[in-house]
Amino acid sequence: MHHYPLALLQLIDFFTKLPGVGAKTAERYAFAALRCAPDDLREWAEALTTLHDKVVPCKECGALLGVGPNGQKGCAFCENASRDRHMLCVVAHPRDVFAIENTREYKGLYHVLGGVLSPMEGIGPDKLNLTKLVTRIRTLMVQELIIGLDSTVEGDATALYIKQELEPFGLKIVRFAFGLPIGSALEYVHGDTLARAFSGRRLFN
Amino acid sequence: MHHYPLALLQLIDFFTKLPGVGAKTAERYAFAALRCAPDDLREWAEALTTLHDKVVPCKECGALLGVGPNGQKGCAFCENASRDRHMLCVVAHPRDVFAIENTREYKGLYHVLGGVLSPMEGIGPDKLNLTKLVTRIRTLMVQELIIGLDSTVEGDATALYIKQELEPFGLKIVRFAFGLPIGSALEYVHGDTLARAFSGRRLFN
Repeated sequence: MHHYPLALLQLIDFFTKLPGVGAKTAERYAFAALRCAPDDLREWAEALTTLHDKVVPCKECGALLGVGPNGQKGCAFCENASRDRHMLCVVAHPRDVFAIENTREYKGLYHVLGGVLSPMEGIGPDKLNLTKLVTRIRTLMVQELIIGLDSTVEGDATALYIKQELEPFGLKIVRFAFGLPIGSALEYVHGDTLARAFSGRRLFN
Repeated sequence: MHHYPLALLQLIDFFTKLPGVGAKTAERYAFAALRCAPDDLREWAEALTTLHDKVVPCKECGALLGVGPNGQKGCAFCENASRDRHMLCVVAHPRDVFAIENTREYKGLYHVLGGVLSPMEGIGPDKLNLTKLVTRIRTLMVQELIIGLDSTVEGDATALYIKQELEPFGLKIVRFAFGLPIGSALEYVHGDTLARAFSGRRLFN
């Protein structure tokens, strides 16, 4: 390893910042970059440098919005009159918004928490975008709050916390359904999933 | 997909240039980049932009060399008096040099071909650094030529081509040994590998 030129080592180091990328993969990536044309690398570098200027979170809901060539921004949700302003879907990360949008099932607004409660990582309620959530629920007169969090221990804890905090507001609080993933075979599904699919069984009609 | 801001789509596009990276992984990488501090992204961009200035192939052997802060270059092999100048190891890519160096088994010089013969990809002998190889064999008075190419169809074809081209020079042409990889179990080893390990068996002493 110590034979790599310093500049290559630095680039390898940056690639290891990516999720799931270890030293070996980062090396492959750096050598692939070395095979790219200098112009491509310059454009790539430009995309990285301007990323935070061109993609910003909406100040209202936290969803990502693209900044236009003249610096104009517009949230595709908050500033869209055709979205139902009385439904609010709480998600952990900006990325989740895209995943839900791609289902074309939802026409309400979003609220990005910026993470989930995780005592292990020192993420308490104060680190999440919760105060704003309460304000928005009041301002928008939200009637249905959809908790769109992961079905992990942290996601469950966060969902429970939000439910307890927001119960006094008297709004309908719902959570995503749990059950069999589409296309799954019973024998490969985890027992917990099967138990939730069983307890949440619905009339077949 | 179509909901992602343009700048994010562009970055995703660059990440798909990396080997083995599909759309899903590129998305994960782009979102990871979005979570990086702007300063980190600027440094990363700098590393990409200056890569081709700071890491250049040696004009003589093709091995990569780092360019020092004052623009000085020096090949760790060609300009190193302690390396055996009568041994030459032919490899396909600059990366192979590092792999061989890490074994600490070899003390001669290298010659990077820049690829292997591949009619499917339109890579003929003229696309490889072969003329220079002949010149170097003459100039350095090479006595042993080690063909350090992959044990693939293309690697085999290239090795055979080089052997035929260089036979008139009357030098010793050798190729890496083929056989069982260290730590492998016979039952999982491919039949071809086992056959080569068998035919290449050596006195156990």
